[in-house]
Amino acid sequence: MPEESNAVLTGPVQVVGTGLIGTSVALACRRAGLEVLLSDVVPDHVRTATGLGAGRPATPEDRPQLVVVAVPPDHLAEGVRDALAAAPDAIVTDVGSVKMAPLDALADQPGRERYVGSHPMAGSERSGPLAASENLFDGRPWAVTPGPGALPAGVRLVELLAEVCGGVVIRLRPDEHDRAVARTSHVPHLVSALVAGTLTGASADHLALSGQGVRDVTRIAGGDPDLYSQIISGNAAAVTALLGELRDRLDLALEAVRDGDRAGLSSLLAHGVAGTRAIPGKHGGPPRPTAAVRVAVPDHPGELARLFADAGDSGVNIEDVRIDHDPGRPFGLVELDVAAESVGELLGALESRGWAAHR
Amino acid sequence: MPEESNAVLTGPVQVVGTGLIGTSVALACRRAGLEVLLSDVVPDHVRTATGLGAGRPATPEDRPQLVVVAVPPDHLAEGVRDALAAAPDAIVTDVGSVKMAPLDALADQPGRERYVGSHPMAGSERSGPLAASENLFDGRPWAVTPGPGALPAGVRLVELLAEVCGGVVIRLRPDEHDRAVARTSHVPHLVSALVAGTLTGASADHLALSGQGVRDVTRIAGGDPDLYSQIISGNAAAVTALLGELRDRLDLALEAVRDGDRAGLSSLLAHGVAGTRAIPGKHGGPPRPTAAVRVAVPDHPGELARLFADAGDSGVNIEDVRIDHDPGRPFGLVELDVAAESVGELLGALESRGWAAHR
Repeated sequence: MPEESNAVLTGPVQVVGTGLIGTSVALACRRAGLEVLLSDVVPDHVRTATGLGAGRPATPEDRPQLVVVAVPPDHLAEGVRDALAAAPDAIVTDVGSVKMAPLDALADQPGRERYVGSHPMAGSERSGPLAASENLFDGRPWAVTPGPGALPAGVRLVELLAEVCGGVVIRLRPDEHDRAVARTSHVPHLVSALVAGTLTGASADHLALSGQGVRDVTRIAGGDPDLYSQIISGNAAAVTALLGELRDRLDLALEAVRDGDRAGLSSLLAHGVAGTRAIPGKHGGPPRPTAAVRVAVPDHPGELARLFADAGDSGVNIEDVRIDHDPGRPFGLVELDVAAESVGELLGALESRGWAAHR
Repeated sequence: MPEESNAVLTGPVQVVGTGLIGTSVALACRRAGLEVLLSDVVPDHVRTATGLGAGRPATPEDRPQLVVVAVPPDHLAEGVRDALAAAPDAIVTDVGSVKMAPLDALADQPGRERYVGSHPMAGSERSGPLAASENLFDGRPWAVTPGPGALPAGVRLVELLAEVCGGVVIRLRPDEHDRAVARTSHVPHLVSALVAGTLTGASADHLALSGQGVRDVTRIAGGDPDLYSQIISGNAAAVTALLGELRDRLDLALEAVRDGDRAGLSSLLAHGVAGTRAIPGKHGGPPRPTAAVRVAVPDHPGELARLFADAGDSGVNIEDVRIDHDPGRPFGLVELDVAAESVGELLGALESRGWAAHR
């Protein structure tokens, strides 16, 4: 590959913005033994992050090898511009959710060949340095999105940062990245919020019929509206295009339901089934057929431990777990997803140990 | 309450349609010691259900006290009509997902005062008698939806059936039931399918950025298109009304994103946050603030057991569990939801036992 280079990440790494993501990057770099320099417009955050062992406050004399700009979406382009100017030898990256807007804003910026955008797919509903963790990125996809003219050594350095932080590098063009996250993140978030919004109009006895389905569909709608408003607005073109497509299909669904067009409705639903199968499985492999084993579990400490101990003894690997929260339940209904061919084995093992289990 | 009566469920209970739900009702009634009679247009299913201990084949001489019609949505009204005629002393109920359509279809039916609709909120992605379980309804909401003129003793008998099967009775008017499930089930399902449908157009490297959010939003879209097409079509009026509202709000979202109306977008997202808070919490109580503790767990049998044993030792109750399936991960990231005030305690307990845990 022409972008290949022998860059080595030796540090120091400067982190600008010591919130959840920035402090987590700093802690992960410290874990790898790199020197880390911290700065933030909120001096208290730098003090807190320093106290957590994330690095030391940056000084004007420092010469970072790499600057990581981890500020809110609205201030990203400005943060990258300042970093390119303040550290004239450094490679500069950012960890923002949208990649085209900052690149466009930097089009005429001297030194822009030293900027390589990136986006770790990790976060939390919490914020601030106290929520940070050196483990936050372990095993997570980390998009690296060099713009035209980016230095190959800079691209490699940012990939090394992602790897040092435990992430799995996925290299994408900035415009591709933005279309990808519109599809896998921004539009699902927006639609989840719209569906959740329809629940505000319902009476308590109607909402008592809520099962796990509506809880799953609306879970991410609980995220911070101001942060997601910044993120989605920053990706307006890709989100608008995809949301327009979705609106057209919603109109088709509305017509099909209203007109009793059973075939049309089935076709839309079948298209959805195909979509769920397109999401990659664990370890990036193709999705493997799994099936659920459902177990009634008394709702107090220790019972889940007993269940997982018994399940572990069966030798069957558990691919996923859900706990069903229907109201009025005197116990939890736990769903264990296992490979389809292992259902009988797990059921037998659990029933022989006294669990009320079923498919 | 004027509908109160001293009805007692003594059986026999006849189950018409021995698929997943019908056979599960039969098994639950057998668990309670009731005599159960089975019938189905597919004789093989009756044989299978009989073999499972769900009851015995019905004969023309039988005099059931209660008939439970558990046939596909499209055949429900016909099934109830046949049952009212064939068992002139029996109370008849059904377990369908929609309540107004069969009631309307039975408006001129002699004996319709003996029909009391019901709807257990339980199911599975599997079907047929072999997927059935006597535990299927334990702790689940079970809507009982008497139409005008329904016999009070019949209403009580159907509530007793729900209780015998382990369900939690929620009495609703049939039209209210249909509006409630449009909101808590049918529209979320349809929208989940539409979002999932947008994934079919994406390339593999775009889908590699999929996180837990899009997986949650699209999970229920994996359900059987033909079954959901019957269910949603049977509730066309309520679904159309709510879907129309949702379409209008999608248009607002589209305009807000396209025009850079940050306040409008934030307001829609905040409306979604309010909706997630409207869903009732465990045991029907108000939602309690929970927070997630994230733990890296090697992806092989026994490790989850060790984690839950250590978590159980901490004395902290686990409200929910998720296993994150990001591709490329050499281990699972397990998220444990616990009461917000217990996060520190659980984190401390896990870290002291060597787990890589964070908020």
